[in-house]
Formats: sequence, C-alpha cells, structure tokens
Amino acid sequence: MHDARIGVVGATGAVGEITLAMLAERGFENVRALASARSAGRRLPYGAGELAVEEATPEALGSGLDVCFFSVGTSASRELVPPAAAGGALCVDKSSAFRLTDGVPLVVPEANGERALGHHGIVANPNCSTIQLVCLLKPLHEAAGLRNVRISTYQSASGAGRASMDRLRQQQSADGNVVMDWEFEGDDSDEESKLRAETRKILELPELPFSATCARVPVLVGHSQAIWVETERPLEPGEAHEVLTAAPSVRVMERPTAKDAVGSDEVLVGRIRRDTAGEGLVLWGVCDNLRKGAALNAIQIAELLLSRQAIAA
Amino acid sequence: MHDARIGVVGATGAVGEITLAMLAERGFENVRALASARSAGRRLPYGAGELAVEEATPEALGSGLDVCFFSVGTSASRELVPPAAAGGALCVDKSSAFRLTDGVPLVVPEANGERALGHHGIVANPNCSTIQLVCLLKPLHEAAGLRNVRISTYQSASGAGRASMDRLRQQQSADGNVVMDWEFEGDDSDEESKLRAETRKILELPELPFSATCARVPVLVGHSQAIWVETERPLEPGEAHEVLTAAPSVRVMERPTAKDAVGSDEVLVGRIRRDTAGEGLVLWGVCDNLRKGAALNAIQIAELLLSRQAIAA
Repeated sequence: MHDARIGVVGATGAVGEITLAMLAERGFENVRALASARSAGRRLPYGAGELAVEEATPEALGSGLDVCFFSVGTSASRELVPPAAAGGALCVDKSSAFRLTDGVPLVVPEANGERALGHHGIVANPNCSTIQLVCLLKPLHEAAGLRNVRISTYQSASGAGRASMDRLRQQQSADGNVVMDWEFEGDDSDEESKLRAETRKILELPELPFSATCARVPVLVGHSQAIWVETERPLEPGEAHEVLTAAPSVRVMERPTAKDAVGSDEVLVGRIRRDTAGEGLVLWGVCDNLRKGAALNAIQIAELLLSRQAIAA
Repeated sequence: MHDARIGVVGATGAVGEITLAMLAERGFENVRALASARSAGRRLPYGAGELAVEEATPEALGSGLDVCFFSVGTSASRELVPPAAAGGALCVDKSSAFRLTDGVPLVVPEANGERALGHHGIVANPNCSTIQLVCLLKPLHEAAGLRNVRISTYQSASGAGRASMDRLRQQQSADGNVVMDWEFEGDDSDEESKLRAETRKILELPELPFSATCARVPVLVGHSQAIWVETERPLEPGEAHEVLTAAPSVRVMERPTAKDAVGSDEVLVGRIRRDTAGEGLVLWGVCDNLRKGAALNAIQIAELLLSRQAIAA
C-alpha cells in the first residue's frame, strides 16, 4: 500500500500542507506535489526530505499515478480530475465539483465507506462541516432513526483556505466578526445547501428534514456545531452518550472547544442533553476541519480502497 | 426629566462607560459616577466635562438619588441595591440578582414596558442575550403565538466585561476559540438558564418550550443569534418580515453582522426564512450588547418611568 504512487494537487494550500504531512506520517513513500504554475518549482517538506512542486496540468496527471488527492477550487477540479481519472488514478476530490454527481460516491469512511468500492475513478470528499456532522449523525441514525436535524455552525477561517487564515492573522486587533462569507441563492448560502444535500446523500436519507445556519467566526482552525436532532425512537441522553462513545472516530468529552480539536483526528462531541424545546437531543460537536474535516478523510478513503485492492495499484 | 438626580454604579466598567456616554447624549445634567473604592477619585469624561468617581457605599447611595443604574456583579448588586431603593432611588439593576425575584419587574420596554410601572423601587434589566431575543420574539408572539424557540448564540467578549475585552485585545494572534465560559449546573450553563427563564418571564409564557446553546466567540462587541421559532399560527417568512419591520427598535436587513450592530441602538434581524426541518421560521439576530443589550435598555426603563411620573423625581 505504501508504495502506491500518490499525487497531491493543491499541495501548497492549507489542506494540501496537512495532506502531505499526514501521508508522510503514515509512511507513503512515492508522493508527488502538484500545484498551479505559480508555485511550480517551490520545494515543500516531506518527511525528512523535500518535494519539488510540479505544475498540475492534465498531462502531468494523466499517467503514472495510482491515487490523486485534489484540494483545489471547484473549477480547477472540473478541469483536472477527469484527465487524472482517465489516466488511471483514483481521484479523491475535496471540492464540491462532483459531490452530488450520480455515480460518484460521496464518502465518510465511518458512515458509508463501502460506497467507495463502487467508484468509477472518482470519490468525492464531503464539505468539512458535513464530515464532522455525519460522524455524529450516522451512529445516532443506526441506533434510533433520524427524524430531523437543525444545526448552526461556528466555522473557522481555515475552512475558507490559506488566504482567509492570513487575513485573520494580519488583523491588528483580535476583534473579528461573525460573517456568512458564502454565496447566497434564495434562502440558503451554498455552504448550507451543501451541508444539507451532502448529509442526505451520505446517510441515504434524501428527504431528511434539515435546517442549517452556517456562520464563520474569527478562529483559525476548528469548526464548532450546535446540533438539535430528533429521532424516530426517542433517545435518552445517556443512551446517546453510549452510542457516541462506541462510534468510530468520535470522542465524547464534557464541553469540547475548537482548540481541543486542533491536531486531533477525532470528532469531539459533548453537551449531550435533552432538547427542552422539543423531543430530541442537543449536541455540541467540534473537529479539526483541516484534518478529519478534509485531509484525513480523503486519505482514509484512499487507504480503504488500497487495502481492499479496489485501486489498480 | 433631565434634571433627575442620576447615579451610575459601576461607572468604570464597559457598560458603565456606555451608560455615561448615553446619558450625556440624552441631556441628563445631574449625574454622579460611582464605583468600588479602588476607582474612587478617578475622573471620567461626561459630555464636555468630567465626573469624579465616588465610592459606591450603602451610605452614598442611600439618599439624594432619583434613579440609580447598577452595572456591577451580582453580589455587589445584592449589597447595594436595597439601601439605594430604601433611600428613594428607582434602581435599574443590570445584574441577575433580582431578575427572577417575584415583585421585581424584568423589563424590555418594547416588550413589557407597562410592567415597569408596578415597581417597588427595583426594576431588573435582563441579560444582554435575552433583550435582543425578546425584541424579536414579542412581535412574532403577538402576531402568531409562540409555540417553541431554539437558539444558539455567538456572544462577544464584552458581554463578560472589560477584563474579557482586554484579554481578547492582548491576544498575539487573532486566533481565538469558541468557548462556554459560564458556570454549569446540570445540563445548562447559567447563561442558558437565564436566557430561558428571563424570556419566559418577560413574555409571560412560563411554560414556553425553549432550548439554548450559548457560546462565546472572539469578537469584542456584538452578539449574534441563530434562532428557530415555531408559532401557533403558521407564519410565512414574508409576513414575519412585515411584522418585524413594524416592530419597535428592530431593523430588518439581509444578513446583518455583529459589526453592523456596533453603535446601533436597534436589534438587527435578517435571514428570515422557513425552517426546513420543521414548521417554523429561522432568523439571524444581532445587537450591540453594550447598548440595547445593556446600557440603553436600562436608560429606556428609567425614561419610561420618568415620563410617566412613576418615579418620585
């Protein structure tokens, strides 16, 4: 598995950097770093050594790769993923370009890893907010059946990329703002639409009643979520606590914060209590949006497929 | 009215400072600044002039005041409010000491101003989060009857006082955290318990189903709230928009932010839309927690009582 030929496209970005670090930690030995022409020639650390950044062209991606991770914008993914897939690479794409495309599995390994096996060259990695939410919702759904979900998010700057992190770091004062820096069409931001549509696709609950308010807060890394969830079979907080304690990649804590999550590979959840406005439960979830929310989830998808020999490599 | 003898206790704090500035703007001419012994003798700007800070002792407060604003901690309010009230001052207390006490009106003038007329020397000013929420809920309740409320908050550092603002300003990096820096007893933080109990008292809906998750974000001033509200009579977003547009001290905007609210005397509300997880509405409210959320609301209570000659002055 560790000699698979891996490409990391968008290697100089916030998620690309973490992807390289995690691949090195996990012992992948045959890794290429790719980025836009602007970054070509830069050298990036990889384990004890370095990688020279290559320009990510359709030609460069069209052969010689077993797995290719894409952490680039949607339009770059639309351009570069198809030639890479046609050239034989399993493409794990972190943009929203293919997430809702029929026939492209949208995968959180803990929730629907088996779906990845049906890939046709592309597996989509969900939005960071979706990944951490689904890690909590899936075990609750298996235990008691989801009836509806309401969520408000406290998303960090890194979810919007390195430039957004730099802007936050350069603020003179620590006084930030709570903003909704997404595109709006109708009632929802595209972030909210993604969160709903992706959650429904992964859980295979296309009609799940779902309402989201997404907001960005002046935090560098770590997304927090206030979640209300109602289940078909009423779940006591104690039982939900047990279900989540047993769930993969989930750690139950009292009141986890974004900073608790930074560097962690788990989704942290706490404040599991009764919804005093209705019949469900309330939760507070936090996650490192660059790790489990992006780079790690994508690597786990590739590892799953490599271990199941569902990639040509 | 403007020659009423006014005391401002806690004059050196974040809310005290705004209280003095607003009293000066509004033309009150007979104002004393009071604070702990530590601050006695300091001089504070007042309009074009200055005030010397007096030590807030039971004796100092026990005579010669028509109205006294308290922006001090709960234990200081418990000690100082009763002698001030016994000495003849109408005490508007911003701590939680008397908010839920029977016989003490808890007042947001736009929602239940008439209740202030029944005071016995003390009127309690609600928690900052409660005030802005109630300004939105009251008109919706009058229009359609509240059935239940869910809310998550994005509260600024200034809600926790000047020391918390200073800590945020002194952060080297802009990278803050999302925290719950309140006391917890059982499932709720005291902030969440206050928000529920105060909202129920002001709206006179003691059984209103209500669920809150309160969080502090690294913002200096301005509280944001994601609100889900269900009404007895279903309200279309368009009708809610009209109701809120007509509501006192409320301004409907598309997507207001905490920074939009800073310095404003109104509660800003936007993103009025259908709750796609249930039958109600979703709103996004923001407010300057030091002004309408604290100092202004208290001054409005006093002005209401002065104008109705319900204060001895």
